Amino acid sequence: MDDLSSIPTPAALVDTTRLQRNIERMAAQAAALGVALRPHVKTTKCDAVVRRQLAAGARGITVSTLKEAEQFFAVGIVDILYAVAIAPNKLTQAAALRQRGCELKIVVDNLDSARAVVAFRSERPFEVWIEIDTDGHRSGLAPDDAALLEVGRCLHAGGARLGGVMTHAGASYELNDPAALRALAEQERAGCVGAAERLRGAGLPCAAVSVGSTPTALSARHLDGVTELRAGVYAMFDLVMANIGVCALDDIALSVLTTVIGHQREKGWAIVDAGWMAMSRDRGTQKQTHDYGYGQVCDADGRVLPGCTMVAADQEHGIVAWADAAHGRIAERLPVGTLLRILPNHACATGAQHPHYHALGAGAPPETWERFYGW
Amino acid sequence: MDDLSSIPTPAALVDTTRLQRNIERMAAQAAALGVALRPHVKTTKCDAVVRRQLAAGARGITVSTLKEAEQFFAVGIVDILYAVAIAPNKLTQAAALRQRGCELKIVVDNLDSARAVVAFRSERPFEVWIEIDTDGHRSGLAPDDAALLEVGRCLHAGGARLGGVMTHAGASYELNDPAALRALAEQERAGCVGAAERLRGAGLPCAAVSVGSTPTALSARHLDGVTELRAGVYAMFDLVMANIGVCALDDIALSVLTTVIGHQREKGWAIVDAGWMAMSRDRGTQKQTHDYGYGQVCDADGRVLPGCTMVAADQEHGIVAWADAAHGRIAERLPVGTLLRILPNHACATGAQHPHYHALGAGAPPETWERFYGW
Repeated sequence: MDDLSSIPTPAALVDTTRLQRNIERMAAQAAALGVALRPHVKTTKCDAVVRRQLAAGARGITVSTLKEAEQFFAVGIVDILYAVAIAPNKLTQAAALRQRGCELKIVVDNLDSARAVVAFRSERPFEVWIEIDTDGHRSGLAPDDAALLEVGRCLHAGGARLGGVMTHAGASYELNDPAALRALAEQERAGCVGAAERLRGAGLPCAAVSVGSTPTALSARHLDGVTELRAGVYAMFDLVMANIGVCALDDIALSVLTTVIGHQREKGWAIVDAGWMAMSRDRGTQKQTHDYGYGQVCDADGRVLPGCTMVAADQEHGIVAWADAAHGRIAERLPVGTLLRILPNHACATGAQHPHYHALGAGAPPETWERFYGW
Repeated sequence: MDDLSSIPTPAALVDTTRLQRNIERMAAQAAALGVALRPHVKTTKCDAVVRRQLAAGARGITVSTLKEAEQFFAVGIVDILYAVAIAPNKLTQAAALRQRGCELKIVVDNLDSARAVVAFRSERPFEVWIEIDTDGHRSGLAPDDAALLEVGRCLHAGGARLGGVMTHAGASYELNDPAALRALAEQERAGCVGAAERLRGAGLPCAAVSVGSTPTALSARHLDGVTELRAGVYAMFDLVMANIGVCALDDIALSVLTTVIGHQREKGWAIVDAGWMAMSRDRGTQKQTHDYGYGQVCDADGRVLPGCTMVAADQEHGIVAWADAAHGRIAERLPVGTLLRILPNHACATGAQHPHYHALGAGAPPETWERFYGW
């Protein structure tokens, strides 16, 4: 394994072998389903990762903020879907991106926003996709909502380019059964295709039909009528995805390198220099099959230490312990100075805590990959 | 109130009137207790805030990372306590700071680390404080631990400057009763003073006796034998502190500005453009008296909307709702484009998500205050 001792802890590590495998897996899945893949780059906000996704066949990207759109457009990526419903006060920024040549697509899910879009005087028309709610977990118009056609007509008649429909079945994060995941993937597909057909039936254009979340993308049996798949966390995977059942622990490409700084022997605790600032406060496995606390502990080479998790975290302190605490032996098992890797609950949240990744690949020299940041 | 419409959302706002009042309150508390105040700057990592703390009488600062030490030393602050037990692999970085003139104090809580410190060949001796565990919540040596004198002797005999003892009663975050908080403050004081007396009784130097957490600092009746108080979150305060009972909602100086981007009328939901990326994943009020979800919602002027909280959050989406959901009326109460301010559960975690604060004061023009970032 690489020499990690030169990396100041805590630090975000990326196993580039796993990353590449994950990227190729989703690319193959999209190809097998006969749809394009538009990765959600909010997971990594990292040009080096996105280059690999595009090299593996991805067409365009999905972003969660206009800042990401600006950052990725600045490094040459043109086809960008901003997948959060546009706030009226962001139209100036979105129009400026379009004016500069970015093929930015914005999203609306209500008539007030659609009216704001068409009322905005942009030199180049907006391309707008309508968000569809296929699982009730957050935003979007239901496929059979009367407002869907009103929104479509408002945009089309108002001079916007009505580009398509998109949905995200985020409820998939609460499942862990393959049959239920397949059913939700089909619900996501059918709802979004149904919305597209209603728009087309009303004489409105609707070229793009965009669906996805990592769990449904990997569970779908067919995507008839869909044009593209969106997914983000698959590039790294994480403990939430492992609990859902769409990856194994040894698929997880992101970990946080940390150093043991002390012990509470009687309690069986090792104290490490990674806390919630390095791991994030995400406790997404708490309600899942296996609760990994703030993360699953591995040795410096990335081998899982079974039963050993980060059980508590302050800002820059973590408490690492075995469930079957071999009390009194903790300082011998993990002496001061020991390097550990912690697998994260949620790769999007943990990655966001770090200015850069340390990319480590078999045989390749370590690289530092910058992440974008801020709004 | 200030015109907020020019600020892209989501954004971290600081009410400078509240900030100044909070800073002066803790300064007055330290003065009344007859001790110095060494603010923990991990809460804000912001030079503009720390300048105000120093102007109000603070002596030196506390940091949670060596990066913070470097960043604040670079802007002229010399007296710095790095309050996380030192990892042996960080001694080179710490020694370099000392060599450049930083009066950096490092911390140890075990013999292995003490040995690593004295074995390290630094041109200028380290100043080392010993961490004391006064409440069992995390790291440190118990005041009566036999190892305390061993660590002290190792450091002193090895040529390090044994500067003092420090403790942090983080268990105070789990209390909400004034009497219990007073008792814990006294336990924190007595334990740390007792450790200092043991070291001195063994002929070892121990000038500094440093205690604190925001709740115990504001609850202590006397600090006999203590030389300095440390606290961090008091500058901003937050919902966790309000639940503990050491501040009111209208003391909270930090909020996140967000825009309503849509609704789910039947559910009584407003969707906003601040999610966990802007608020952090901190759910610290979940087990407290009042669960504020991901934050308490206020109007754009900062007036609390009673019963209205951020009930769920994805990366860049928040769901805002009233507990007594006036279903069907949400889009009329909070139309698309409405600006809201969300008070955070934990100011340290929420602040860390933002590259800068927008500082707003009565009568003063808005300012942008940069935050430090990374390790």
